[in-house]
Amino acid sequence: MRRFFIIVAVAVLGALALQAGVRDDFKAHPKMSANNYQAYPDTVLPAITAAPEGYEPFFINHYGRHGSRWLIHEKSYTRPIDMLEKGERDGKLTRRGAEVLAILREVHDASKGRLGELSDIGAEQHQGIARRMYQNFPQVFKDGAPVVARSTVVIRCILSMQNEVDVLASLNPRLKITTDASEATMYYMNYSDSVARTLRASMQENIDMCRDKWVNPKGLLKKLFSDQRWVKANIDEGEARTMMVNLFEVVGNMQSHHQFENVDLYDLFSAEDIYSLWRYNNAFWYIRSGETPLTQCRVDYMEANLLRNFIEDADKATTDDAPAPGASLRFGHESVVLPLCCLMGLNGADYRTTDLGNLDKYWQTYKFFPMAANIQFVYFRKAGSDDILMLPLLNEHEATLPVQTDVAPYYHWSDVRDYFIDKLSRQPIIPPTK
Amino acid sequence: MRRFFIIVAVAVLGALALQAGVRDDFKAHPKMSANNYQAYPDTVLPAITAAPEGYEPFFINHYGRHGSRWLIHEKSYTRPIDMLEKGERDGKLTRRGAEVLAILREVHDASKGRLGELSDIGAEQHQGIARRMYQNFPQVFKDGAPVVARSTVVIRCILSMQNEVDVLASLNPRLKITTDASEATMYYMNYSDSVARTLRASMQENIDMCRDKWVNPKGLLKKLFSDQRWVKANIDEGEARTMMVNLFEVVGNMQSHHQFENVDLYDLFSAEDIYSLWRYNNAFWYIRSGETPLTQCRVDYMEANLLRNFIEDADKATTDDAPAPGASLRFGHESVVLPLCCLMGLNGADYRTTDLGNLDKYWQTYKFFPMAANIQFVYFRKAGSDDILMLPLLNEHEATLPVQTDVAPYYHWSDVRDYFIDKLSRQPIIPPTK
Repeated sequence: MRRFFIIVAVAVLGALALQAGVRDDFKAHPKMSANNYQAYPDTVLPAITAAPEGYEPFFINHYGRHGSRWLIHEKSYTRPIDMLEKGERDGKLTRRGAEVLAILREVHDASKGRLGELSDIGAEQHQGIARRMYQNFPQVFKDGAPVVARSTVVIRCILSMQNEVDVLASLNPRLKITTDASEATMYYMNYSDSVARTLRASMQENIDMCRDKWVNPKGLLKKLFSDQRWVKANIDEGEARTMMVNLFEVVGNMQSHHQFENVDLYDLFSAEDIYSLWRYNNAFWYIRSGETPLTQCRVDYMEANLLRNFIEDADKATTDDAPAPGASLRFGHESVVLPLCCLMGLNGADYRTTDLGNLDKYWQTYKFFPMAANIQFVYFRKAGSDDILMLPLLNEHEATLPVQTDVAPYYHWSDVRDYFIDKLSRQPIIPPTK
Repeated sequence: MRRFFIIVAVAVLGALALQAGVRDDFKAHPKMSANNYQAYPDTVLPAITAAPEGYEPFFINHYGRHGSRWLIHEKSYTRPIDMLEKGERDGKLTRRGAEVLAILREVHDASKGRLGELSDIGAEQHQGIARRMYQNFPQVFKDGAPVVARSTVVIRCILSMQNEVDVLASLNPRLKITTDASEATMYYMNYSDSVARTLRASMQENIDMCRDKWVNPKGLLKKLFSDQRWVKANIDEGEARTMMVNLFEVVGNMQSHHQFENVDLYDLFSAEDIYSLWRYNNAFWYIRSGETPLTQCRVDYMEANLLRNFIEDADKATTDDAPAPGASLRFGHESVVLPLCCLMGLNGADYRTTDLGNLDKYWQTYKFFPMAANIQFVYFRKAGSDDILMLPLLNEHEATLPVQTDVAPYYHWSDVRDYFIDKLSRQPIIPPTK
């Protein structure tokens, strides 16, 4: 009994500490709350732990998200503008409301013809990733080493590939680079999984309820509009909530552009607003990607083909006698990176729960998929040994896998491979439940 | 009177000589007849004429087509297969017909998931172009020089850009490279001109008549099918003609892939067939792009925005005091390169006629737009002089413009600029005539 209390107490304290951690993160870095719109955090990166004696890197297996981009839907830009213009027409904007409207118009103008496209900062993110990949693991990029790069057929991903590969070409002109973006590889680069779609759709109502319960536009409306009676008479609460979600997207995504990265609109949201908006988004992404019993622990298996492709490429690299098997680089989306993290169990992404109300304490998306998010598996070998080691990196930080290891943060690749093969075998193909 | 006869005689002899030239070209190089599917001819390239004393290259203005690719429409691959399978079912294929069917199935299989995409040879073409551009004009690619590359939003063009820019990055890692593929630049990268479309559509019937008059499938059918009575009873002549056009596309485009470039199916077509199929295609492209009174001499003005963009970038490069204004690289389509050649009057592409029956003697598309076709305007300056010279290159051969020059093959850029500005002013915006 006493032991039970201790366990509960530890769990409760742990949860509070975890939650405090998220709130503290956002207090220190509000831009983190932008979640998948967060700019790739590359100003301070940890050094890589030296490999065990005698081991040298020889191959990199990679999937990376495109860099920072413009928002995809014009409505995200125009909905807040439309609502503010309503207030402007009736003379009901606060001074801050009028300032915000002017800024939003400027952002919207700049987005024209650019919806969904890679931004200037996005291009730079990939140049930096390539440079560090080369500097950290120069042995992988020897003369004549193949760099097999492919992208989904979406242009921001292709241009991300371009920016990464250009830098590698400039660092060693004798690499054998090939690039591709083809329908023929989409089955693993961004598989369109009707089973996952159906499972997800079954939870849409619950996600909408989370939004309506957690996201409260009242404080925001007070900051934007000078007359709350006018607000009550003229602005529907549901529309205000949608507008708030969109505005939070626009504000969060301003860090994607040099033109706007230093324009700060976070004062429009209280700490509680920021937390709640992120929390809703977090639950949304958990249902979209997570290994939850709410969707038969099946959704992250949408990346089964991709994980198999990682294994196949590693098999080739580790069994061929090529002196330098080089790098296998894949460029795609956060909607692939996140479920792949879940399927791999990277950094505990395979956390299972049915309790969306407490999810935010245990599973936080902003730790996984900023813009340009990337998974790098770096393979090491030692002369005279068959034991291949693998160092998993998430966004260039050493990451963990649910596999025992005596060489942490490195893993014996054969153990990881066994784990993945077993994991893949645990989910039969589930037909759509529609 | 005597003078008149001499003029007529010279014209007739000239026409015969020209026509013989085309037939001789195809006899020596049947693959040339593939027209826009022709692989970029880069095995033998002429040396560049040295610039006048003291002149150095400092800027390149460029528009290039994507490299070799797969055919865009699956029907082009399947129509010939379908017709041959009909013969196969009835036991009516010649031995060659059966061989051809097997090859076509292999090509079709290889095309799956690749329709319209850049081929392996296509990627190499752009690598070569970049390497020679750098080697011929190294002064353009000084440390810190901007390379502003942009592509249409079509993936084969983006990957062509990638292949070209990678090589430049590897040749000088200190170039300032930016890449883009955006809806925001499509108004000049590949303008969708409703006026040109309408004018063109008005001529569709004439083009179809050219096809029906010139393209005769009888010889081909004899080579493929063993029983001409069976052919008469089972194969519609119109369908056979369409199949022949498609088969000629497939055969012509096999030079796009290392896998098939040495498989020769040209024995299926007589010299007359090859000439006729090309001739029909030539007329098709003339109506699509040419400056012909048949379409009010208006169609090539679809590239007015692009030509203005060339002028604007040249203006920036020649008036800014940047020590190295670098290169402005654009990647797109033959359906842009060809009308741009016409609008510029490059190598006489602005030839005007209403006589499609004699067009083939005076205007030949295969001289303009193989895969990876490119226009390079290379700008030269001399210390202490304001006179900028420009060398126009078409597919890396020195080209002519309808402008007087005393420094051929170079031109005084101010003369060319004046010519273009005047040319652009000659065509008012024509509303769609639909």
